[in-house]
Amino acid sequence: MIPELRKDPISGRWVIISTNRGKRPSDFGRMVEQRRGGFCPFCEGNESTTPPEIMSYRASNTKANAPGWTTRVVPNKFPALQIEGDLNKVGEGMFDKMNGIGAHEVLIETPKHDLTIPQMALKDVENMFWGFHDRVHDLKKDTRFKYIMIFKNYGSAAGASLEHPHSQLIALPIIPLAVQEEMNGANTYYNYKDRCVFCDIIHQDKQSGVRLVNENEHFMAICPYAPRFPFETWILPKRHAQLFEECWKDEYISLAQVLQDTITRMDKVLQDPPYNFIIHTSPLHGYHDVPYYHWHLEIIPKLTKVAGFEWGTGFYINPTPPEEAAKFLREVEL
Amino acid sequence: MIPELRKDPISGRWVIISTNRGKRPSDFGRMVEQRRGGFCPFCEGNESTTPPEIMSYRASNTKANAPGWTTRVVPNKFPALQIEGDLNKVGEGMFDKMNGIGAHEVLIETPKHDLTIPQMALKDVENMFWGFHDRVHDLKKDTRFKYIMIFKNYGSAAGASLEHPHSQLIALPIIPLAVQEEMNGANTYYNYKDRCVFCDIIHQDKQSGVRLVNENEHFMAICPYAPRFPFETWILPKRHAQLFEECWKDEYISLAQVLQDTITRMDKVLQDPPYNFIIHTSPLHGYHDVPYYHWHLEIIPKLTKVAGFEWGTGFYINPTPPEEAAKFLREVEL
Repeated sequence: MIPELRKDPISGRWVIISTNRGKRPSDFGRMVEQRRGGFCPFCEGNESTTPPEIMSYRASNTKANAPGWTTRVVPNKFPALQIEGDLNKVGEGMFDKMNGIGAHEVLIETPKHDLTIPQMALKDVENMFWGFHDRVHDLKKDTRFKYIMIFKNYGSAAGASLEHPHSQLIALPIIPLAVQEEMNGANTYYNYKDRCVFCDIIHQDKQSGVRLVNENEHFMAICPYAPRFPFETWILPKRHAQLFEECWKDEYISLAQVLQDTITRMDKVLQDPPYNFIIHTSPLHGYHDVPYYHWHLEIIPKLTKVAGFEWGTGFYINPTPPEEAAKFLREVEL
Repeated sequence: MIPELRKDPISGRWVIISTNRGKRPSDFGRMVEQRRGGFCPFCEGNESTTPPEIMSYRASNTKANAPGWTTRVVPNKFPALQIEGDLNKVGEGMFDKMNGIGAHEVLIETPKHDLTIPQMALKDVENMFWGFHDRVHDLKKDTRFKYIMIFKNYGSAAGASLEHPHSQLIALPIIPLAVQEEMNGANTYYNYKDRCVFCDIIHQDKQSGVRLVNENEHFMAICPYAPRFPFETWILPKRHAQLFEECWKDEYISLAQVLQDTITRMDKVLQDPPYNFIIHTSPLHGYHDVPYYHWHLEIIPKLTKVAGFEWGTGFYINPTPPEEAAKFLREVEL
């Protein structure tokens, strides 16, 4: 069955109903554990067990879908969305839906099974970002797509089902509500102040220093003023830019450095926590020059389980002030 | 330290930074387990170990904070908000905050430690709703408060830290963003159609029947058209009404029946799943007569752990179509 995109008529939120991953009630194991040990389809030598690769960075004398790569992108074997077909937007009485058309890709960050971002070569972290860059530029050509979500789940508590270092891209035929709301909020601020809210945050947090985690030439990592989660950390480019995929070459190196440094600090302070990171960037078309939006990357360590309430309400109770979290991260011995 | 309410300048989302519950980094145990066995402060006979009760339903010959009650409301011993003080709204440069003033109360649903909602006497489930009703009417007199969240976490995976049947009320000096957005969305629909979106859902889902779980005179339980989570279920009053606390007497009985029946069905189909329920109702003041909003109760079983991504993005991938979930719940043998 083709996955469906359905719109909640009250909130306007789109959800993916993806029965490819369909589960019978009895399949809902409480807290499914990540597979450990055993066969890994992402390891070097097992290339034939994934769907054929979409792209890879590899030694020039090696062939696609064979060893010799450093970064590899493949279609997700259990995609939430399906690449072939028409959107076929229709109503079901008062409700709205369309076919779940989209791309769901996996970026394998290194051939080595056991590495974490702090342990990877800086070049490989940088190549992860280049991989995202290249895939976004390619997927952008498909006019059915309006937004690409780029994210990483690390650790089973954060939703990773495989251990091997990987991240994901989902190209969507809609703009997710949360993205639209972030754009709108930033736009409202801009209309009032004539300044980018993210640029203002960078300016104020640099001056005060209390929420600063680290920085280098092009990027700054901070714990945001009103974080939803303990140790939530954002990495912001110092240069105002709307689109992740239009960074300069030097910026990707700088970004890799700050990400690696930040996760290293989290590992030290929080003992290798599960986490998610998500790239917040503008929609694919029509936002090229907006003065109000500023792409960034948000890291959320998964430390507390008390999330049921937050899930249901979108209302967050956070036991750790960001100034305290930032101090721990800033001052930890590396 | 007084808890703080802080506003994210981009989204407008308020969060509570509550260091009363403060944790050092080393305290973030991965997946803290619910206390099992051992001493329970909510059990009959242990009344003196909770803060003094705010109200209770009890035998007329018994005294406050002594045995003899059936429903009991006490202040949360580790409140996310503090009842005494002024809001003291101030800016911190570009950021906005106020003191975390509010009420955080616990409703103990029965003196018996081991019962679940399906096992409780119907009268006790009804009394839970009467308890919410009474507390909302009392808290409403405090003009500092704008919204009251009423919710239950059941099971440690859903955030419950104590086993004994209980639910919670949090009175807030702000309207949570998610509530405001739900109101706005419903208002937009009303402006376009001149009809309440929830009334329309009730009408369509009653006719089609495919997402219906159960119903009685005053309420209907359905799996919503665009659910975020597998087996997400909403209980809607058939009579258009803005405010939970203004139900008719018969309606609370009817509501208790439908809730008990729905959770019983979930228990059978999903083997006693952890869940949250949240009452979605209008803000305390100024929404008395709005034609567009319709209070209801949302139940979210916590079945999948793959939530990191959803947390960070507000974008949901759901493997179970609501029509399938509703069929399981509707047809299960009781």
